[in-house]
Amino acid sequence: MNQQILLAQRPDGFPKPSDFQLVTSPIPTPAAGEILVRTLYLSLDPYMRGRMNDRKSYAPPVKLGEVMVGGVVGQVAASLHPQFRPGDFIEGYLGWQTHVLSDGQGLRKLDPNLAPISTALGVLGMPGLTAYFGLLAIGQPQAGETVVVSGAAGAVGSLVGQIAKLKGCRVVGVAGTDDKVDYLLKELGFDAAFNYKTTADYSIKLKELCPDGIDVYFDNVGGPITDAVFQRINVRARACVCGQISQYNLARPEPGPRFLGKLIEKRARVEGFLVFQFVERYEEGLRQLAEWSHAGKIRLRETITDGIENAPQAFIGMLQGQNTGKQLVRVAAMT
Amino acid sequence: MNQQILLAQRPDGFPKPSDFQLVTSPIPTPAAGEILVRTLYLSLDPYMRGRMNDRKSYAPPVKLGEVMVGGVVGQVAASLHPQFRPGDFIEGYLGWQTHVLSDGQGLRKLDPNLAPISTALGVLGMPGLTAYFGLLAIGQPQAGETVVVSGAAGAVGSLVGQIAKLKGCRVVGVAGTDDKVDYLLKELGFDAAFNYKTTADYSIKLKELCPDGIDVYFDNVGGPITDAVFQRINVRARACVCGQISQYNLARPEPGPRFLGKLIEKRARVEGFLVFQFVERYEEGLRQLAEWSHAGKIRLRETITDGIENAPQAFIGMLQGQNTGKQLVRVAAMT
Repeated sequence: MNQQILLAQRPDGFPKPSDFQLVTSPIPTPAAGEILVRTLYLSLDPYMRGRMNDRKSYAPPVKLGEVMVGGVVGQVAASLHPQFRPGDFIEGYLGWQTHVLSDGQGLRKLDPNLAPISTALGVLGMPGLTAYFGLLAIGQPQAGETVVVSGAAGAVGSLVGQIAKLKGCRVVGVAGTDDKVDYLLKELGFDAAFNYKTTADYSIKLKELCPDGIDVYFDNVGGPITDAVFQRINVRARACVCGQISQYNLARPEPGPRFLGKLIEKRARVEGFLVFQFVERYEEGLRQLAEWSHAGKIRLRETITDGIENAPQAFIGMLQGQNTGKQLVRVAAMT
Repeated sequence: MNQQILLAQRPDGFPKPSDFQLVTSPIPTPAAGEILVRTLYLSLDPYMRGRMNDRKSYAPPVKLGEVMVGGVVGQVAASLHPQFRPGDFIEGYLGWQTHVLSDGQGLRKLDPNLAPISTALGVLGMPGLTAYFGLLAIGQPQAGETVVVSGAAGAVGSLVGQIAKLKGCRVVGVAGTDDKVDYLLKELGFDAAFNYKTTADYSIKLKELCPDGIDVYFDNVGGPITDAVFQRINVRARACVCGQISQYNLARPEPGPRFLGKLIEKRARVEGFLVFQFVERYEEGLRQLAEWSHAGKIRLRETITDGIENAPQAFIGMLQGQNTGKQLVRVAAMT
């Protein structure tokens, strides 16, 4: 049987398991020009929280009763499509389900001999490209500059920090557990990091860890961490706004200190971005990320939850920061 | 006698006349290499409010008991400097005083036959350059785009709107009186404008006046006007942050809605700037502004207050929005 996770109701603040519904149905059969994909890994990402709201953003919301959207790595189980054969590995935006039909559009074929297939959802996928283009094209870090990353132990954040190190920057991470801080310092080579949940005054901590101020800020989180960062930016600083996970689950918007006066004083730039705007440069990005990854210069830990039925709880856990690195759901084994 | 306006005490919130002090002293005599300048016009500008605070920003504060800083147009009254002759007109950053010595550094000689000398403090001076580079270099408006300007009837704002019109944009101004709105619409050719003091819901008004959304925002004001603008920005919008006059006189900072999530959704950029960062391009800017000005394509109304003793009240009035266009103090007549 095919198992699918639907959006059952729109969350009121933080999502609950009952906002999702697991349904089963017969496994569909491909028509001419179609393939049947068996999902192996489902990617869980913060952006999905936005799709659960009844509000158009850069992408339309998931409708009630529809399958939750998301990237997956899968294997072709049956094919009536000339370019796919059973057993082929693919990556695509196919949703929270064990089986799905596709006409092949938007799928990327994966070679399991080049890299573990799950990396197509991490370092060699959307998170990797987000870190690469967000940091380098928007943030434009220069050697010797100080780069601060929030959500630093997440999939995007941990790659941002490592890429900034490769560019010769001083890298400071903000994360939510002591274990994550250890991971950043000892395994990923960050120069400094702190646990925001046990730090009373972010501003004092940032002053201590960034004695030369902050030149580039890569923001996955928003809220009070970001407020404190803006107080310590240098002249011509750049903030790359990638995510605002601290704000996604608030029942009502939280006000914050105004900082536009600081942007004038520092002649600083704040820019939001979506990885999709770099689509014409994906090939370049993936080539560079693969080179660094194969050379052992960047790595991305995976936090793996087994079973699609556990995807809602894993997603909620990710929004709470329970994962380190990339949060995946292992839906089925390779055949 | 020389009359000088000193900073007597640091304002607590909105400046009061008693924060300033008028003192008199003998007119100084130039030494070798110096000139004596007799001030004709004093420029009053919002940035001066920042200098009254005891807090380092991009420039140091005025010390208590020091002459208030500011740009002036003056005439050389006596010269022991080889490059200046009595009667020469100059523009420089010489402060709130009727007479001042200078070694000539940083002074710009003015030709009164090319343009009225007071324009060196307006369209052909710092406000003109601020509008020109802020809008064109930071905002990068394209023909057909919608440009919104706050503080639209001020010196910078009214020039921004006219330059945006010259670039083929739809221009919408926000100002604080009905007379200013009329001025923008009838004299400066803005496409639309509204009085924020008599508008209940800025967001609804902006939706009405910007049916295609907002591509470029030139912000002189900050606060709730800016909050409403960010809710209506288009994909790849640019906000040029020039001033935040609504915030300068608050006794304590005012919180506001967070908007970084909107910047992500719209892939939008917010950038603060100071005109000084374009110093190497001033010549280009002044040449273009002079060409437009002489051709009648841009104009800047002057609000003139007579007498240096009235400068504090005129400055307070400018912070309250009582001026239209450039606020000047006429200190003395040309000889």
